[in-house]
Amino acid sequence: MQLSVGVDVGGTKVLAVLMGADGAVVAEARAPTPLDNEELLDVIAKAAAEVGAGTSAHDVGVGVPGLVDRDGTLRFAPNLPGVLGVPVRAGLEARLPGVSVRVGNDATFAGWAEHVLGAGRGHDDVLMVTLGTGIGGGLVCGGRLVEGANGFAGEIGHMVIDPQGPRCLCGRRGCWERLASGSGLGRLGREAGEAGQAARVVALAGGDPEAIRGEHVTIAAAEGDEEARSVMASFAWWVALGLANLANIFDPACIVLGGGMIEVGSVLIAPVRTAFVGLIEPDHRAGRQYRPAIEVVPAVLGAKAGAIGAALLARA
Amino acid sequence: MQLSVGVDVGGTKVLAVLMGADGAVVAEARAPTPLDNEELLDVIAKAAAEVGAGTSAHDVGVGVPGLVDRDGTLRFAPNLPGVLGVPVRAGLEARLPGVSVRVGNDATFAGWAEHVLGAGRGHDDVLMVTLGTGIGGGLVCGGRLVEGANGFAGEIGHMVIDPQGPRCLCGRRGCWERLASGSGLGRLGREAGEAGQAARVVALAGGDPEAIRGEHVTIAAAEGDEEARSVMASFAWWVALGLANLANIFDPACIVLGGGMIEVGSVLIAPVRTAFVGLIEPDHRAGRQYRPAIEVVPAVLGAKAGAIGAALLARA
Repeated sequence: MQLSVGVDVGGTKVLAVLMGADGAVVAEARAPTPLDNEELLDVIAKAAAEVGAGTSAHDVGVGVPGLVDRDGTLRFAPNLPGVLGVPVRAGLEARLPGVSVRVGNDATFAGWAEHVLGAGRGHDDVLMVTLGTGIGGGLVCGGRLVEGANGFAGEIGHMVIDPQGPRCLCGRRGCWERLASGSGLGRLGREAGEAGQAARVVALAGGDPEAIRGEHVTIAAAEGDEEARSVMASFAWWVALGLANLANIFDPACIVLGGGMIEVGSVLIAPVRTAFVGLIEPDHRAGRQYRPAIEVVPAVLGAKAGAIGAALLARA
Repeated sequence: MQLSVGVDVGGTKVLAVLMGADGAVVAEARAPTPLDNEELLDVIAKAAAEVGAGTSAHDVGVGVPGLVDRDGTLRFAPNLPGVLGVPVRAGLEARLPGVSVRVGNDATFAGWAEHVLGAGRGHDDVLMVTLGTGIGGGLVCGGRLVEGANGFAGEIGHMVIDPQGPRCLCGRRGCWERLASGSGLGRLGREAGEAGQAARVVALAGGDPEAIRGEHVTIAAAEGDEEARSVMASFAWWVALGLANLANIFDPACIVLGGGMIEVGSVLIAPVRTAFVGLIEPDHRAGRQYRPAIEVVPAVLGAKAGAIGAALLARA
C-alpha cells in the first residue's frame, strides 16, 4: 500500500487527508465549501494538492454528498445549492496532472472506512447508517462495497416506512429520514410539547413548544428527564424500524451508526438497541431465534470517516 | 463448465434437474415433499441421484424455502411444518458419497438463475422478487450474490412499510408480504366487496364478499372489470412501494418479478410499472431525474428457477 489522498466534501467544508501506508492520517487540510461548480473543483484540487505536496501520493478519492454516477460526475447534491452536474473526476484530473481520481458518495465511503478501519472491522457484512439532518448509508456485502448499477446505491433514507407519515422533500410521504433523523426527533418533541408534556424540553426551547428542536430533546434526556426519555424511546423505535428492515434485507453482522445525532451517545443508542432487538426478534414462530445477534455499534472514525474511506478506496 | 444437479425443495414437491455444460436442463425428477427431516433428506438424495445417474455430475445445489445457515443447515422453514434444523449439506454428502453439496435459500437461488440465464441476463445489479403466498428475494450486486453474514439475506418480505398495517405471522405489523402478496390482494378485494363495490369480484367468490381471494380479483381484472382493476391498482401500489424502497437501497439496473402471482401477466405488471415510476421519481427536486429508468420485467424461468440457480451455484 502506498500513500493516498482522501477528500470529503461536506455542506459547509471540504476536508482533505493524506493517508499513510498503514492507514493512519498524516496530514489534513480544510477549506469552506464554495457553492459553484468551478470554484468547488478548484478548492478540492487545492486541498488535495496541499496534503499531498512533496509526497508520492497520486491516488485521490473524493466523497461528495449526493448522487455520483459511474463517470465520477456529481449529478445532484441536495445540500449544495448551485452545484449541479459537476464532472468531479474529469475536473480534478485536469487540475492535477498525473493523478488518478475516484469519486463516490460520502456516506458510502464512510461505510467503507468503518468496515476497514473502524467499528465494523473484522466483519464482511456491514451496514453503516449516518443519522444527521437526513439519513445516509454505506453497504458492505461479502467484503465488497455495494455501489449499484449507476453508483446510486445506499439511499436508505428514502425507504418509505409509513405511507401516512410526514411529507419528505423527495415528494413521498413517510421516508425513513423524515421520521428518524434530527428533524424527526424535533417533530416528536414538538408533538409532546404541544400536548402539554415534556416540560423540561419546552423550557430548553425557551418556553415555546413550537420552537423545540431535536437537540432540546437530547439535552433533556441526557439530564435524565423521564418525559424526554420517553420521546427519545419513540424516536429510537423509528430508527430501529429502518435498521430491522435493512437487517432482514442484508443480514449484516454489524450495524454501525454514525452522523451528528450519534454524538449524544448512549442516550440514543441504548433505546435504539432495545427497540431493534424487539423488532428483529418479534416472534419465535418466524424463526428469528436462529439469527445470531447483530451488533449495533457507534462509528469510531467520526467526521473524518468520509475522507478516510475516500483515501482507502482511491488506492484500491 | 461441467454437468451439475440442482434441487428445489418446495412446500409440496421436490424438483431435481440435471444441467448440461451449456446451462440447459437435460433431465428432471419430481417427488412429493415429506414433512420429516430424515425422509426429506432421503427424497432429495434420491431425486438428485436419479437425474445424475450415469453422468459425471458430482456437484449438487439445493434450494430450500427458509433460513439456511453457512453450514448448509436449514434452520427454519415456515411452510414445512415438522421440518426443523435439517443438516442438508452434511445429510446429503453422507447419502451421496463423492458429491459436493451447496445449500441456500430458494428465492436467492432463483434470483441467481434469472441473473445468469433469465430476465436479468446482462445486468450486474439485479433484484429478484418472488410474489406468492409471501414475498421472497434474491439480490445480485456487482455480479455477486448477496448472502449475508449468516446466509439469511433477502428476507425482503419482512420489510415493514406500514406500522399500522395488518399483523404479520412474524409478529410485526405491516410487513411488505402482508400487503403485497396473494393474501394482501385478497384483503383489498374483501374490503372493496364489503364496501359494496367490485360486484364482479363478489360474484366470482360465490356472492360472499368474505370469501374473496386474490385470484377472484385477478380473474375479474383480466376480464376488464373496472372495479377489479381499481383494486389491482391499489394492490400494485403496495408492490411498487417495496420495489421503490429496494431500488433506493440497491440501485439495480433491473427488477425481475417472479412467483405465482406474476403468472397473471400484464394485468398485474402493468399497474406495478406505473406505480413504480411514480414512486421512484416523485419529485425532480430530489434529483431522481438523473437515475436511468429501472426495468421491471417478469421472470422467464418460471417454477424451475430455483433448481436452475441451485445447479448453477453448485458448480461455481
